[in-house]
Amino acid sequence: MSVSSHSEFWLHRQGMALMTDFYQLTMLAGYLKHGLAERRVSFEYFFRTLPPNTGFVLTAGLEQFMDYLENFRFSPPDLEYLESLRVFDQATLDYLAKFQPALEILALPEGTPVFPHESIIRVTGPLGHAQLVETFLLNALNYQSLIATKTARICQAAQGDPVLEFGLRRAQGPDGGLTGSRAAYIGGAVATSNVLAGRFFNIPVRGTHAHSWVMSFPDEKTSFEAFANTFPRGCALLVDTYDTMRSGVPNAIEVFKTRPHIPPAIRIDSGDLAKLSKAAHGKFSEAGMPQVTIIGTNDLDEDLIADLKRQGAKINMWAVGTHLITSKDHPALDGVYKLVAIEKNGSWSPRIKLTGNPEKTTDPGLKRPLRCYNEKHQPLGDIIISEEEPLPQGPEILAVDRQYLHQKRTITGVAYVEDLLQPVIRPGENKPSRPALLEIRNYARQKLAEFPEEYLRLRNPEIYWLGLSPELARIKEKMLSSP
Amino acid sequence: MSVSSHSEFWLHRQGMALMTDFYQLTMLAGYLKHGLAERRVSFEYFFRTLPPNTGFVLTAGLEQFMDYLENFRFSPPDLEYLESLRVFDQATLDYLAKFQPALEILALPEGTPVFPHESIIRVTGPLGHAQLVETFLLNALNYQSLIATKTARICQAAQGDPVLEFGLRRAQGPDGGLTGSRAAYIGGAVATSNVLAGRFFNIPVRGTHAHSWVMSFPDEKTSFEAFANTFPRGCALLVDTYDTMRSGVPNAIEVFKTRPHIPPAIRIDSGDLAKLSKAAHGKFSEAGMPQVTIIGTNDLDEDLIADLKRQGAKINMWAVGTHLITSKDHPALDGVYKLVAIEKNGSWSPRIKLTGNPEKTTDPGLKRPLRCYNEKHQPLGDIIISEEEPLPQGPEILAVDRQYLHQKRTITGVAYVEDLLQPVIRPGENKPSRPALLEIRNYARQKLAEFPEEYLRLRNPEIYWLGLSPELARIKEKMLSSP
Repeated sequence: MSVSSHSEFWLHRQGMALMTDFYQLTMLAGYLKHGLAERRVSFEYFFRTLPPNTGFVLTAGLEQFMDYLENFRFSPPDLEYLESLRVFDQATLDYLAKFQPALEILALPEGTPVFPHESIIRVTGPLGHAQLVETFLLNALNYQSLIATKTARICQAAQGDPVLEFGLRRAQGPDGGLTGSRAAYIGGAVATSNVLAGRFFNIPVRGTHAHSWVMSFPDEKTSFEAFANTFPRGCALLVDTYDTMRSGVPNAIEVFKTRPHIPPAIRIDSGDLAKLSKAAHGKFSEAGMPQVTIIGTNDLDEDLIADLKRQGAKINMWAVGTHLITSKDHPALDGVYKLVAIEKNGSWSPRIKLTGNPEKTTDPGLKRPLRCYNEKHQPLGDIIISEEEPLPQGPEILAVDRQYLHQKRTITGVAYVEDLLQPVIRPGENKPSRPALLEIRNYARQKLAEFPEEYLRLRNPEIYWLGLSPELARIKEKMLSSP
Repeated sequence: MSVSSHSEFWLHRQGMALMTDFYQLTMLAGYLKHGLAERRVSFEYFFRTLPPNTGFVLTAGLEQFMDYLENFRFSPPDLEYLESLRVFDQATLDYLAKFQPALEILALPEGTPVFPHESIIRVTGPLGHAQLVETFLLNALNYQSLIATKTARICQAAQGDPVLEFGLRRAQGPDGGLTGSRAAYIGGAVATSNVLAGRFFNIPVRGTHAHSWVMSFPDEKTSFEAFANTFPRGCALLVDTYDTMRSGVPNAIEVFKTRPHIPPAIRIDSGDLAKLSKAAHGKFSEAGMPQVTIIGTNDLDEDLIADLKRQGAKINMWAVGTHLITSKDHPALDGVYKLVAIEKNGSWSPRIKLTGNPEKTTDPGLKRPLRCYNEKHQPLGDIIISEEEPLPQGPEILAVDRQYLHQKRTITGVAYVEDLLQPVIRPGENKPSRPALLEIRNYARQKLAEFPEEYLRLRNPEIYWLGLSPELARIKEKMLSSP
C-alpha cells in the first residue's frame, strides 16, 4: 500500500473509532449492563449561539461524518488498548469487537444556511450506537460549519472579488488545515494554498512567492525576473520585501512591461494596504497596465476587507489566512447533540433537558425544521414542527417563540414551505449518493442568495425569525410544567 | 495492514508531503531553474507576539515535525496530481520524486518557556529542502505551542487541582483534537477525554457521563445507581440534569452512602458553580463525605477558574474543553519561519527582512538564544548572540534592546548561562533519541517553576527581559543602515 493511500485513510476517517470521548465508552458499558444499549432513541445536533455579528451559520462537515460511519471499526489494537485500561468488562469488549453503527441519519444538506436550535442532523437507532458517534459528529460539524460561515462573511466583504484561503500554517493541526480548506471552499473561497486539500478535494490551488525568494537573489529585480521566467503563463510578484513603492512596484512594472504575455499581478503584504494599492495601481496604469491584479494579504478579516473597500483600495483579490482558518474571533461553534426521544412500546416518548441555565433547555421530541418562502422565493421565517405533524399550509402560519412560549407570531404571505431535513442513511441501505464539493459550494451560494441582504450583513444583521409550531410548543409547555 | 495502523500513519505524519503551501512548490521550481535549490541556507522559526495577558510561550510540536521529516516522500499519486496542474516542468517533478530532506535541525527542547523573537528551531541545508518543510513546521509548532501555553495558564489558575482536557468535540478537526491533547498534557493537564490520544500518546483518559445517561433511565437516582454499579471502582455522577441541589446532590449522596467502597465524586455542569459547589460540599460533609471530589465544567477558562478559586468554590478538579483546545481568546500563535543567512564561498552571509511594518524587521544571521541564571537557578533575562560568538561570562552581561538599538542594559548577578538551542538532527545521522511525553511534561513543569511568579501570573505579567549581544546589535545596525 503506497504512502499516499495512508493519508487517504485518514481523509476517509478510517481507524477513528477511538476518536471519541472516554465517557461514550463508559456509558456504553453501563447501557450494556443494564440492557439499554439496543433501546431505540433519537438524538439531534444543533447549535445555540451565532458567531458574533453573524446572522446565519452555513452547515458543513456531513460528508466526513458519513465517511466515519462507513468505516467505523474497532481494530484489535484499539481493543487491546481498551482492555489495558481495566475499566471495561468482557461483554463490553466483545460488543465493541463486533460493533458497526446501524443508524438512520437525516440531515440538512451541506451548505444550508441554518439558525440557532434548528436540528441539523438527526441520528436514530440503538442507544449504544447513537451515543458512540456523538463526539466525532460534533468535531466534524462544529469546525467545518464555523469555517464555511466565516468564509461566507469574508466573501461578502470582498463584494465579488476572489478570496483565496491561505491558512494552513496557522491552522489548528494538519487536519484543521485540510477540512478547513474544504469548508472554506463551500463558504465561497475560490482556491486554497493547501496542496493536499487541492489533491483530495479537487479544490484549485494558488500561491505567489515568499520574501525569502526575493532575499535569495542578489537584488529584487533579478528575483522578479527569475520568477516570471519560471512561470511565463502567470505569476504574482510580492512587492514589499524592501520598499513597496520605491523598489517593489517599479521593479514589477519593468518585469511585466518586458513580458506582455504575462498578466500582471502583484501581492502587497505589509504597510497601508489602501494607500499602497492605490499608488501601485496608479503606477501600473501609467505604465499601460490598469488591469493589474493586486492581491492583498496581511492578517485580513472581513471587517478589514470591508473597510479597505470603503476606502477605495485598489485590491481586487484577497488572500486570507489566520482569521479564516481559525475563525479567530470565535474559534468554536457551540453545537451540541441532545437526546430528544426514546422509543417506548413502539412509539416515541419525547425527552427534554432542563438545567440551571434556562437558555440551555432543549425542545423535546423528534422535530423537523421548515423554511417558509414567499412567492419571490425569499425565506420569511423558519418553523420547527413535531415529526408527526403535517406540514403547515400558507399563506398564514402561526408560530410560537421557542423560549418565551407566550409570544406568538403569524408568518404571512407564505407561498410554500421547504422541509429542510433530508434522509441520508437508512440502516441496510446502499451507500448514499454524495454531492460533489462544487455542487455543495453552488448550493450554498444559491441558498444564501435567497435571503434578503439584511440577514447577511456584516454588522447587526436582522435576526431571522424562527418559532415552534403551536403543537410542539404545547408539548414543550407540558413537559416544562411536569418534566 | 490493519485499520488502526492507518491512523498511526497519520499520527506519524506520513503521506504528508503535499500538506504544504502551493508557493513552496512553485518557489522550488524556480530555485531549480536558476540553480539555487542546492544553495546552503539557514531559516529560523520564532514568534512575535505573546498571547494576551501571557508572559511566556511553552514550545511543543517538535516531535511531529521530526516524524514528518523522517517520513517525507512524494508518492506516485502525489506526483501525478502535481503533473496534472500543468505548472511544473519535468525537472521539478523528477527532483520531487527523489526528494528526501537532508537538513540539520537545532531546536529548543519541547516544553521550554520561550519569548518573542527567540529562535525555537533552526533549519539549515539546501534552500529547496529548507523551503519545502516550512508550512508543516509552522502548522505543528504554532498550534501545539499555543495549546501547551494555554493549558499551563489554566493549570496555574487551578492552583494544583488536577485539570482534565475535555476538548475534542470543539477542537478544530480531529487532528486539532489529537495533537491538542498531546500539547495539553505537556502544558500540565493530567488526563484527556480523547481515547485515541490516550492510546497513541499514553495519556491517561478520563470521563464522567452525559445528561443523556440520566435521561435514559426512569429517574435520576436509578441512573446514578446503574452507573455506580457499572463502575464500582470509581465514578463521577453528573448532578445537574434536573435540579442540582434538590435532586442531583441528594440522589448522589444516597448512592455513595450505600456504596462506601466508591470514592464519592460529582460533576456540576451548569448554574452558579461557586454557590452550588459550596452547597454540595456542605451536604456531602454533613453526610460524612467531606472528601468528595467535585468536578467543575461548563465553558471554563483560566480567568473563570481563578475567579471561582477567589470565591472559595469547593471545586477540586477542573475539566476544560473549548477554551483550552482552541485557545479561544487567541486561537493562533503568529510563529514565522524566516531566512536568516545564505552561505557564500563557505561562510554565512546574514539576511534581514525589512518591510512597511518596522516591528516585523528580523534579526539577521544564525543566532543562539541564551538564558542567564542567578545562583538560585532563576532566569534573569535572555540574550541572543550570533552563532560565531563565544558564550558571554557573568556576573555582568551587557545586552541591547532588539528593536531600540540605542537602549542597553546590563544583566547582573549572572551565575551561569544556558545555551537553549540543542542539535536534534544532523544529515546522515541515526534517528535522534526522543524524550517520552511524560519526560517532556516534567521538563516543562520544572522549567516553568524556575521563573519567579511575576513572569507567570495571569494578568499583567512582568515582561521578561530579552536583548541582543552587542556584536549582534552591531551587525543588525549595519544592515539597517545599508540593507
